[in-house]
Parts: sequence; structure tokens; C-alpha cells
Amino acid sequence: MTSTYTYPKLSDEGVKTIVNEINHYALSNGLVMYKDTNNLANETAVAPITLFPTIISKNDFEQAVNSQTIYNKLYANILLDEKNWLSNEISKTSHLDPDFTGKLYDLYVKYESDKVYKKQNLQLGIFRNDFLIDHLDGGETSIKEVEFNTISVSFGGLSNKVSKLHEFLFDSDYYTFAGKDGNSFHNEKIEVPVSESLQNIAKSLKLGVDSFEKQQDQKNTIVLFVVQPNERNVFDQRLVEYELFNKYKIKSKRITIDQVDSLIKKNEKDSKLYYENGSLISVVYFRACYSPNDFLSKKSWENRLYLELSLSIKVPTLKMQLAGSKKIQQLLTNKDILYRFIDDPKESASLLDTFVKIYPLDDSKDGNFAKELIKENDPEILSNFVLKPQREGGGNNIYKTDITPYLLKTYPNEKDWDAFILMELIKSVPTSGNIILRNNELYNVNILSELGIFGSVLIDDKSKKILYNTYDGWLLRSKLSDSNEGGVAAGFGCVDSLALI
Amino acid sequence: MTSTYTYPKLSDEGVKTIVNEINHYALSNGLVMYKDTNNLANETAVAPITLFPTIISKNDFEQAVNSQTIYNKLYANILLDEKNWLSNEISKTSHLDPDFTGKLYDLYVKYESDKVYKKQNLQLGIFRNDFLIDHLDGGETSIKEVEFNTISVSFGGLSNKVSKLHEFLFDSDYYTFAGKDGNSFHNEKIEVPVSESLQNIAKSLKLGVDSFEKQQDQKNTIVLFVVQPNERNVFDQRLVEYELFNKYKIKSKRITIDQVDSLIKKNEKDSKLYYENGSLISVVYFRACYSPNDFLSKKSWENRLYLELSLSIKVPTLKMQLAGSKKIQQLLTNKDILYRFIDDPKESASLLDTFVKIYPLDDSKDGNFAKELIKENDPEILSNFVLKPQREGGGNNIYKTDITPYLLKTYPNEKDWDAFILMELIKSVPTSGNIILRNNELYNVNILSELGIFGSVLIDDKSKKILYNTYDGWLLRSKLSDSNEGGVAAGFGCVDSLALI
Ligand SMILES: Nc1ncnc2c1ncn2[C@@H]1O[C@H](COP(=O)(O)OP(=O)(O)OP(=O)(O)O)[C@@H](O)[C@H]1O
Ligand SMILES: Nc1ncnc2c1ncn2[C@@H]1O[C@H](COP(=O)(O)OP(=O)(O)OP(=O)(O)O)[C@@H](O)[C@H]1O
Ligand SMILES: [Mg+2]
Ligand SMILES: [Mg+2]
Ligand SMILES: [Mg+2]
Ligand SMILES: [Mg+2]
Repeated sequence: MTSTYTYPKLSDEGVKTIVNEINHYALSNGLVMYKDTNNLANETAVAPITLFPTIISKNDFEQAVNSQTIYNKLYANILLDEKNWLSNEISKTSHLDPDFTGKLYDLYVKYESDKVYKKQNLQLGIFRNDFLIDHLDGGETSIKEVEFNTISVSFGGLSNKVSKLHEFLFDSDYYTFAGKDGNSFHNEKIEVPVSESLQNIAKSLKLGVDSFEKQQDQKNTIVLFVVQPNERNVFDQRLVEYELFNKYKIKSKRITIDQVDSLIKKNEKDSKLYYENGSLISVVYFRACYSPNDFLSKKSWENRLYLELSLSIKVPTLKMQLAGSKKIQQLLTNKDILYRFIDDPKESASLLDTFVKIYPLDDSKDGNFAKELIKENDPEILSNFVLKPQREGGGNNIYKTDITPYLLKTYPNEKDWDAFILMELIKSVPTSGNIILRNNELYNVNILSELGIFGSVLIDDKSKKILYNTYDGWLLRSKLSDSNEGGVAAGFGCVDSLALI
Repeated sequence: MTSTYTYPKLSDEGVKTIVNEINHYALSNGLVMYKDTNNLANETAVAPITLFPTIISKNDFEQAVNSQTIYNKLYANILLDEKNWLSNEISKTSHLDPDFTGKLYDLYVKYESDKVYKKQNLQLGIFRNDFLIDHLDGGETSIKEVEFNTISVSFGGLSNKVSKLHEFLFDSDYYTFAGKDGNSFHNEKIEVPVSESLQNIAKSLKLGVDSFEKQQDQKNTIVLFVVQPNERNVFDQRLVEYELFNKYKIKSKRITIDQVDSLIKKNEKDSKLYYENGSLISVVYFRACYSPNDFLSKKSWENRLYLELSLSIKVPTLKMQLAGSKKIQQLLTNKDILYRFIDDPKESASLLDTFVKIYPLDDSKDGNFAKELIKENDPEILSNFVLKPQREGGGNNIYKTDITPYLLKTYPNEKDWDAFILMELIKSVPTSGNIILRNNELYNVNILSELGIFGSVLIDDKSKKILYNTYDGWLLRSKLSDSNEGGVAAGFGCVDSLALI
């Protein structure tokens, strides 16, 4: 469908003008990223970006938006489940990923069995559900879920900025200046919306602060951002901090997980956490700790548990992080499991609509079927699949015909394959006409776009209630269509925004 | 007085923390400047900046603020004067500066005598009055005017940002973290205010747009920014454009004076100006054309007149630009002249309080006295003076004992000295304890600070009325105390803000 839409065809002069507008806007408004890790100091560069917002069907977008609070509810219900289905499921496979899921799960078990520290009954989730647009044979499109992220979801800040930039360019007629050349931006029905993801993420953090302060009868508490050292995408995080400060006068501090034992103190009596300057920490917001690379020492793992075993509200808790496992995503594509957590048939049907087939590689019927597929190694069949380990952060997936050789070579013992899921590839069709600007170079290439929808929940373990459940804005990331993954910071993608039609 | 105040004494770790906070804040919020003219594209750097706001007496600050609307009125009244005193005075010496004042005045005369084009009766002024703090012998301080700028006043954008940064650091306890070490930021009475200069300058431009649109019964007009090519300080200007767009949906376009004939069209019937995309230009806002270097061709001078001879509101008109001459400033220190334009004795007295002695170098009594001083060439006496030609933009003044040899050598004919004014040096005392951060290097040096007060007027030549007269915020620029001039972009100064006590 989108392929019939066309982008402005700019003259060389027009391109120069728009690029200049983009550079000035981005550098004035924090739409930036450190250029490389050599100078994370006083100089920065325009974030990789598209010249135009990418044209997407309004129906598809609205379907994704409308699903967010249902997805939020699904994960909230999993976390609130009396029988702790989540823990039971994770325990079955976590030992197969001893470097990460296994360790996270061990910490979670220690947390659960701890009898020393006071526990926080509130959990705050700041999520992002990622979709690709599937192209069906009849030319129809529909959104399909790539993955549900429960920890360290990024680009809420930059998405707000890039969508405002594109709105600025659109409203200032830079997209229609070339005259009536049939480009879709002349269409009166086209909308270039702004993502309020920055404002909404800050609002959710404020809710965490307020809830803690009310619960504990405290004031002037702070948010602790747990971050990676040498973060190139630091401005995306900082924008949230400045929004918290400017709008709500809420202060924040940033530390790495390795600094916890030197900068944070816990009151052993009431389990309250304090920053070294004496500020009480109401919310611990993880923008790190989603990958084993973030834990470079035994101490860093201990620090993670230290934070968990405190009265601060964690965004997310270890349990909430584990709920975002690819294994859990796979299990939820099973209707019986899904119905358990979303009993409204209309709601569960709307989620099922967005799932593609995901196979386990265990000894179930589905699992054995999938393992056979892999062993048969038919290139045509395997070209429809991606193999995913339990990792976040990009660059970990194995695609198509690489799957079989990879598994056979690296995991000769088939039992170990259960650490992976096998996911059907979403057949998203590259679009052409938009232009990527990165490092001051233009790439007039086919792109693939991934739509992320932000959402938040605040849940109460004690009352087993969902106290807050919202849609928080969106993100569009686009990448060269011939690169398999789309990490913007990692180096192959860029931030984009939407033109709805 | 201010010398008894002390700044935080930071540990090495404390400095590192604050510098990191400054870098992130500045790069996220457009508190930036292009690093050099080689890459005015996709990379930028933190603007030269101080670590702390500079401590200034609240009295001095308030005196400067309170004088602004009186200064505005003074210049408005000069412009509205029925006898055109301004033109008469400028005509006497403009031929002595044939490269610039002479040419500006010629254009002005052509404008006045033109009978072809429709003229705009509204003039909008966006001014900045600059002060130094004079230190009297008894230890008292008082503010003294350096110069009144009527064209292209800059740093309204960055001043808002740097004051917000310092407020953020102060409110986040970065200045008191080191503990009660007697530093003045522990003082409960200290205030770290925010300059609303960005918001107010945009508001004044909007007033220009609204006034034009009402007058002409038009809508959706734009502001034309006339700028220099390769402007390093472009973000300061862009911030105003984005404020106009975000708050008022007013669009703007940027051109250099050399591009006027190719990008701007005038309707010969009604003298309305249009940008090449067809947008009607309500306001022409000069962020260039204040120096002969901005006019590199005959065409550029013609373009300047072309803009003047249009119905658009000019910020400023040629006449308003000429009112900002140093010659006019000198004349206004004459009480009789001052009283002509500000008849309220309290008001004129409050202005006189802020003047230092300025001599003409003409054949008046004062002028002959000053010329004698120069020729006597007593180093002790001349060390109290600065010689100023009619130029803007810094780097043109001649200081102290350089004055006599300069004049004797360059202007052997004493008649030509009348192009200059001889101004008493304001005895401002350097302060120590603040730290300059520029290009990622720290300078723990004595600094001199110059306070700028922004203000606007809208005046009507027809009714001879002042329609609008406001104080618009402030700017503090600081420089190493051993460099004679304080241009931030030019390379020796930095943007600072205020801590009032
Ligand atoms: N089923 C699929 N069909 C098509 N492409 C997919 C599919 N699953 C993943 N991808 C592609 O691979 C990328 C990475 O996959 P995924 O997001 O699941 O991994 P990740 O390691 O969790 O990455 P991150 O958390 O950084 O987004 C996606 O952004 C998408 O481009
Ligand atoms: N009377 C004075 N006493 C002390 N210092 C002065 C005096 N006049 C000027 N200076 C110093 O010289 C600098 C430049 O002077 P001035 O502002 O008059 O020149 P300019 O060419 O108009 O510069 P610009 O328009 O860029 O500010 C001032 O910022 C101040 O530091
Ligand atoms: Mg992903
Ligand atoms: Mg992920
Ligand atoms: Mg000056
Ligand atoms: Mg000046």
C-alpha cells in the first residue's frame, strides 16, 4: 500500500536547504548523538535521521497504538499472577543461558527468598512494543510484533525531537516547496504527528516518584538513572532528565551499575536507598543492565541485587525484565496461555492479530517440528525464519540459512537449543523515496521501518491491581533495507517519524 | 563589593562532574556554537561558558533593569523627533567615515527623499544596552553604560539557555555539594535568575508581525532574518526562530544581504516584500549589516536600500541603526541634549547616573580639550580612556597609550579625528573564583563581566507615539580580565549568568 506514495523530489538546492534546516534544528534541540566514543565531551553531532517522515497507513498506526494498553495489561497480569507462571517458565530454560538469563533469574530467586529487606509492592514499567509492517499477498498490510521491551527502552527523547523537526519542515513548506510534483505531502489528508514520548516517559517517572512519596510520606526524592559508561545516546536520556526537572522539579542522578556500592547507601532498617549527597531515591530507572556486557564484574551483579532489595520503585524489577524475555513472547503466542492473562476475547484476538508464528526449540510438538525444520536445512523454508537467543540490544539474531550451521556448530547438544526461539520473519517491504542523513552523508536507498509504541504501567503486588496503564507515544526507526538489524546507536539505522495517510 | 563573595571550591572530581553536566545540558539544549568555520554542518560544540553564575549585587542589576524602558524611550524619542535632530547630527560627521556611516547615511537620505515606494510608519527596535560595573574609591559599585546597541543584538537565545543551565546546576545542589565551605552559594539570599530574553525577543518580533498584519489586513506573513554567511553563532538566532514557530506558528526565512535581489521580490505597486516561495514578509530582522564587512559588493548596499524601501517593518530601520552610533551616545551625555528627549528630571537623572564622560573630537570646547589631551600624550591620563570609531562588532577600539600614536599616524589631518569619540574607561574590577570552560579547557582566571539589558520598542512615525516599550531580559558576558574586548563568538569571551546577592 505505502509503495504507491511518493516523497518530494528535491533539486540539489532543495536538498541543501533541507539538510541545513535539519542540522540547525537538530543541534539546537538536542536531536543529537555523540559521534564516537573518543570524545564524549563538548562536541556532538546530528543524530542519524531521515529527511522526510516515512509515510505509513493511518490504520496500521492506529492499530498499533490501540493495542498498547492491552499489551501493557498482558504483561501486568503476568507479573501479578498469583501462581507466578512467569517464574515457573523462566526456571525451565534459564540455566541454558547461564551468562545472562540464568544470572538474572538467580538474583530474582534470591530477591524473592530474602527475609532481611523491606520490599516495595509497586512496580513501574516503561515499555516499548516494536512492530514491523507485514505485507500480505493481496497488497494489504498489517502490523506484526517484533518484540516487547520491558527494560531500558530508548529513543523516547529523540523520537519527540525528530517528529517535531519533521513537523517543522512540513509546516514550513519545505516538503511541498518544489511545487505540485505529485508528491504525497501535497495531499491534504496527510498528517505529520508529534510523538509525545519524551513528555509521557517523564510523566510516568513522576508517577513513580509521587507514588513512592505518598506511600512513604516523603518529599524531594530523586530518580536514579542506572546507565552505561560511555553512552553515545546519552542525550536521549538527558532529555528525560531535563523534562523531569523543568516540568516537575524532580532531580535525578546518573550512575553505572559498577558505581552502586560506592555512591549509594541503604538504610539497613527500612531498606531506603540514598544517593551519596543524602537524597532519598524513590525510583531506580534502568537505562542499562539489559545485556551481560553491562555486568563486567561479580560486584556489578551484587550491585544489581542490592538495588532490587530496596524500597525504591524499580523500572523495571528483575521480574519485569524477565517478563520481556523472548521465551515469554514465544509462549504468549499460544492461545491458551494468552487467554489466561487476557480473558476478554476481543482483546486477546486483537493481540493475536499482531503475532507471527514463534516456535520453541524444546521437546513439545511445536518444538520438535521446529528442530526438524532446522535440521532439514531447506534454504527456502529457513529463509522465512530468524533465530533469537535471550538477548537485548541488537546484533544477536541469526537469520535464515545461517541458522542451521550456527546451531549445529555452536550447540552440538540439541538440548541446548531450547535457549533460542525460532521466529517467522515478518515480510515487510522496503519503501523508497525517503533519504537517510547520517554523518553528513545522504543515502537515497530503500529503507525498512520499525514502529515502536511506548506505554507504561504501575502495578501493585499487594492489591494485585493495575494502578496505571497508558499509551505513551511512538518511535519510528528506519534502516537500509539490506541491513538485517536496525540499531540506531549501534550504527545501521536512524530515527524517523510518521506521515500518516 | 563583589570581591568579598566566594565561589565553590571544587575538588577535581567535583569539577569533572560539573563539566560533564554542563556538556550534556548545553548539547541537549542548543547552548552551542559552531566550533570553527570549517564545518558549519552537522557537528557543534558547547558555547564558551562559565562554571558558575557570576555574583553581582542585586542593586546594580536592578538599576540596570529599571533603566531599560527609559533608555528605550530616549532612543524612541530621538527617532520620533519632529526636527530630525538625529539626521542633522549624523550629517555633520558621516562623511568622515565614508566606508560605513557615510554610506548608511546616504542610503537613509535616499530613503527619505524617495517618492516611489510606500513607506512603513512603524519601526520596531530590539535593543541591548551594555554596562560595566564601576568600582568607586569607597568600595561602592555602580553601573556604567558601555554602549547602546540598536542593530543585531545577539545572545538573547544563549543567555536564556546559560541562565537555565546555571539554575539547573544550582537547584541540583552542584554548587553546594562540596559542603559548607563558606562559598556564597550557601547563602539563602542568593538568587540565580533566568533571563527570559529568548522568549521576549520572539514576543517582540511577534508584535511586529501582528502589527503589520493588522495594518495591512493580512495573515500568515513571515519574518525575514538577514544574516551573515558562515555564522558560527547561528544557534542563538535559530532559537528565536524556533520560539517564533513553536509558540506563535510564525515562520521565518534566512538570507544574506547578497541574496536579497535573487530571493526577494517587491510588488512595485504597494511596496510589499515577498520571499521566493510567495510568502509575504511582515518583518525584516537584521542579524547582519552592522559592519562594513557585511557589505562586500555594490549590490549589497543596493539590496539594503531595497529592503528599506518596502512596506515591511524593519528591525531596525537605517535611521534606528544610525541612532545607535557612538557619536549619538556621546552627544546624549550632554545634559541639554538629553533633557530634550527625556524631560522627566528623575528619569534623565537616572540615565545620567549611568554615563561616564565621553568627549567628541570636534571643534567644540570639549572637543578641543580632548584633542589637547591626546596630543599631550600623558600616559597616566590616557590610561583612563578608550578611543572608539563608529563601528560595531568588537575589535575596533584603541585603548590607553595606543590612542595618540594611532591617531597621529593614521589621521595626520586633525579634522578627521571627529570620526571618533574619546570615552572614559569604566573602572571595573576583575573578580576571581569563577571558572571559564571553553573548548573543553578550564581557565581559572580573573574575569571581567559585561551586563547587557535587552529591551524593545515599537514606534509610529505617523502618530509620533511609542506603542510598546519593554524590558526583555539580560545577558552577562565574561572575559579574561587581561583581554580588552569581550566578544564571545570572536574568541575571547564567554556566556555567563547572574547570581544576585
Ligand atoms: N520476526 C522478524 N521479522 C523480521 N525482522 C525481524 C524479526 N525479528 C527481529 N527482526 C529484526 O531484527 C532486529 C532485532 O531483533 P530484536 O529487536 O528482537 O532483537 P534485540 O536484540 O532485542 O534488539 P533491541 O532490543 O536492540 O531492539 C529488529 O529490529 C528487526 O529489524
Ligand atoms: N568606556 C569603557 N570602559 C571600559 N571598557 C570599555 C569601555 N568601552 C568599551 N569597553 C570594552 O570594549 C568592548 C567593546 O566596546 P564596544 O562595545 O563599545 O564596541 P563595539 O565595536 O560596539 O562592540 P560590540 O558591538 O561587538 O559589543 C566592550 O565590550 C568593553 O569590554
Ligand atoms: Mg528490538
Ligand atoms: Mg529488544
Ligand atoms: Mg559592545
Ligand atoms: Mg556595539
